[in-house]
Amino acid sequence: MEKIKPRTLSGFMELLPEEQQLFRRMIQTLEDTYSLYGFTPLDTPLIEASEILLAKGGGETEKQIYRFTKGDADLSLRFDLTVPLARYVAQHSAELAFPFRRFQVGKVYRGERAQRGRFREFYQADIDIIGDEKLDIMNEAEIPSVIYRAFTRLGLKRFRIRLNNRKVLNGFFELLGLSDRAADILRTIDKLEKIGADKVLELLRELGIDDAKGEEIIRFISTGGDTPAVLAALEAYRGRNETFDLGAEELATVVRYMEGFGVPSDFFTVDLTIARGLDYYTGTVYETVMTDHPEIGSICSGGRYDNLAEYYTDRKLPGVGISIGLTRLFFVLNDRKLLNPAYPVFPSDVLILPMTDAPACAVGLATYFRERGIRAQLYSEKKKFKAKVGYADKLRIPFVVFLGEDELSSGTVSLKDLRTGEQQAMSKELAASVIAGAVAALKQRSLIGADETISI
Amino acid sequence: MEKIKPRTLSGFMELLPEEQQLFRRMIQTLEDTYSLYGFTPLDTPLIEASEILLAKGGGETEKQIYRFTKGDADLSLRFDLTVPLARYVAQHSAELAFPFRRFQVGKVYRGERAQRGRFREFYQADIDIIGDEKLDIMNEAEIPSVIYRAFTRLGLKRFRIRLNNRKVLNGFFELLGLSDRAADILRTIDKLEKIGADKVLELLRELGIDDAKGEEIIRFISTGGDTPAVLAALEAYRGRNETFDLGAEELATVVRYMEGFGVPSDFFTVDLTIARGLDYYTGTVYETVMTDHPEIGSICSGGRYDNLAEYYTDRKLPGVGISIGLTRLFFVLNDRKLLNPAYPVFPSDVLILPMTDAPACAVGLATYFRERGIRAQLYSEKKKFKAKVGYADKLRIPFVVFLGEDELSSGTVSLKDLRTGEQQAMSKELAASVIAGAVAALKQRSLIGADETISI
Repeated sequence: MEKIKPRTLSGFMELLPEEQQLFRRMIQTLEDTYSLYGFTPLDTPLIEASEILLAKGGGETEKQIYRFTKGDADLSLRFDLTVPLARYVAQHSAELAFPFRRFQVGKVYRGERAQRGRFREFYQADIDIIGDEKLDIMNEAEIPSVIYRAFTRLGLKRFRIRLNNRKVLNGFFELLGLSDRAADILRTIDKLEKIGADKVLELLRELGIDDAKGEEIIRFISTGGDTPAVLAALEAYRGRNETFDLGAEELATVVRYMEGFGVPSDFFTVDLTIARGLDYYTGTVYETVMTDHPEIGSICSGGRYDNLAEYYTDRKLPGVGISIGLTRLFFVLNDRKLLNPAYPVFPSDVLILPMTDAPACAVGLATYFRERGIRAQLYSEKKKFKAKVGYADKLRIPFVVFLGEDELSSGTVSLKDLRTGEQQAMSKELAASVIAGAVAALKQRSLIGADETISI
Repeated sequence: MEKIKPRTLSGFMELLPEEQQLFRRMIQTLEDTYSLYGFTPLDTPLIEASEILLAKGGGETEKQIYRFTKGDADLSLRFDLTVPLARYVAQHSAELAFPFRRFQVGKVYRGERAQRGRFREFYQADIDIIGDEKLDIMNEAEIPSVIYRAFTRLGLKRFRIRLNNRKVLNGFFELLGLSDRAADILRTIDKLEKIGADKVLELLRELGIDDAKGEEIIRFISTGGDTPAVLAALEAYRGRNETFDLGAEELATVVRYMEGFGVPSDFFTVDLTIARGLDYYTGTVYETVMTDHPEIGSICSGGRYDNLAEYYTDRKLPGVGISIGLTRLFFVLNDRKLLNPAYPVFPSDVLILPMTDAPACAVGLATYFRERGIRAQLYSEKKKFKAKVGYADKLRIPFVVFLGEDELSSGTVSLKDLRTGEQQAMSKELAASVIAGAVAALKQRSLIGADETISI
């Protein structure tokens, strides 16, 4: 029979078992953290009516979307988790309690040009808090604390959450009489870090903004220093524009409560350059950068919006949310060797090797271990001794139990620690406790870092 | 602005938050159980080249598949998890250790005719053990023990795993000189339970099988009684056909070790009517039925196959696997009210209600709880007292903490148990321990059953 070459599509990440364990642990850590803050898990279909997903329409989205027909139906694969959330909340609003806090970790699809580190199928890990008509500013202080805790639990040591407030920027543009061009200006200054002040000034000039105002914009958003210094600088502009004042007030409030929510002050900073290209943000906006790897860009972004589901309902649903591009983050961490090579990725805690032709005892032992929560695999293939131990080695299983004539007659097991090479006869009770203890200790290791603690 | 009616597609299950928590718990229970047996998690793309997915081709699959083009690429959504597994193992075989044990829980797509309880997007939860050239019979005894433990942990009390062996059936047909029609006969007798003996006899007649042989087939597969009785009945046919003898031997071995693997004898039975329509099974086959709901059909099926990846590689990869159609199972359990209404589905363990205008203390308390693993939500909206407590009620959050002037001045918190209505002032340390204890107890509840223990 002629064979079809097995392959995955370009732009689709597929992991080998060890990497998959790391990736899975990453998802679990995020989900556990999100749950601590009262976010409830959600799962929406990957396929939606194109009309729903493209309600906003236009731009890159429409070009990149996976769209097709099945029978009469015009269908599309979701390209983010926000549009399905908007649809979900609009559809089920009568049955939800607001504020509605949900997390969702799932795959999304974008037919981007294939290139290294870019994916067409990728996981996003989102949290959002949706209010009914109103949503208190405290939620905007809480969101970054979720992110702080999530990254910290993953083992990330050096990162910074950058904050800004869109009202501050918009108010400032109003002050300059430029509010009609606010969206264009936002898109332009968002590039400051990437292209530099001169280029931004040039682009602003193309928008019809004279150099005096252009320079003032750049000077304003470049306000440096620590958080109190930036907040103090904003005070200088107070009292001249309502939007600006409200934004400055919100920013101060968010900053004031973030520490209470558990974010140490050196893990966040107010950065007036942060605009987030998306034009639907209306309040606090966030980006997160790895301090020693700014070139990676933001690994977690989001912000406050005033109207989540305007395409589907008249109900005003303001919210605040943030998203981690998980597949890309994993790729980058893996690629730069920032994942902990000592993190436990073995599929079993112990491999049981029956050394006689009577496997009943080994079967019973496997069951005994499993009943105690120990992940046990019984190796029943007829192979040479070396191949059996080699199997445990290849899978990095830390313990092997041998059950030979001696053990069967004395009612003991021989437990070998493959990391030290030590082997000892003992009761199955003791073996269980040795294995459980060692594995619990291994699981304390952090996913990111370890030896890289210094370099991350 | 004109609104687009928010909706999901027909045949796509979407759950409200409480049901979603149950569904998620179901997945987690399965994944945890699979892990106990040394299965490693896998995640493959939802989209594959059509050529890969349709390598086997033909039949219903091709009609039901979601197939589309993107650019030049002919793409399809996976319709099961077995074909992607075959492709994965063939593609990565050099990097895998055999036997390769993997579990995968993921969505698959089939454009079936929409009807109640049938889904076009649904979860499958699969385990497979893949050998290289050979795979020991012990694996066939172990697989049903995974299923037994998984369903037991979900809370299912009355179910039965039915076993058969394809070699027994094939050998029996050889005995009758009917091996050329084995596949057709298998498909026919698979319907025995559904359509009855007379109809089966009629269909066999249409296959050119005379009534004497037809009746012998039906008599054989209807061999009743408990497991030892059926195995004893097989002994009567021994020594006349090699395939039959091997099958009988395998069946006896599987039965012998299943108890050692922890499956009580009243949870499985040898049933010679089980054929499984799919023609690639070659050894043990499994079905699982809920004893009091036989009309639901098999909730978990699978078996032994000899050549997993023949379309992609020359390497012979025998295996044994089993699959749970999770979305359908959840639908059926939910529909028949077999899920435990008392199972905890609240998104937070405690809701913190600041009763003054100084939320700093409440923020600190939320952080304190979260650091101790308690899922805490701070309610910061400006609402009436009743609305705040109503929010906790609607989400079924079991505890509320009030922080008013009294509490702030005395350094205590007021903890209210919403289930009993009891409220008491106490230290935050005590509150944390009360909440953690109560929630841990609630989580002991089983997902399925409780009051339904008797009826399942």
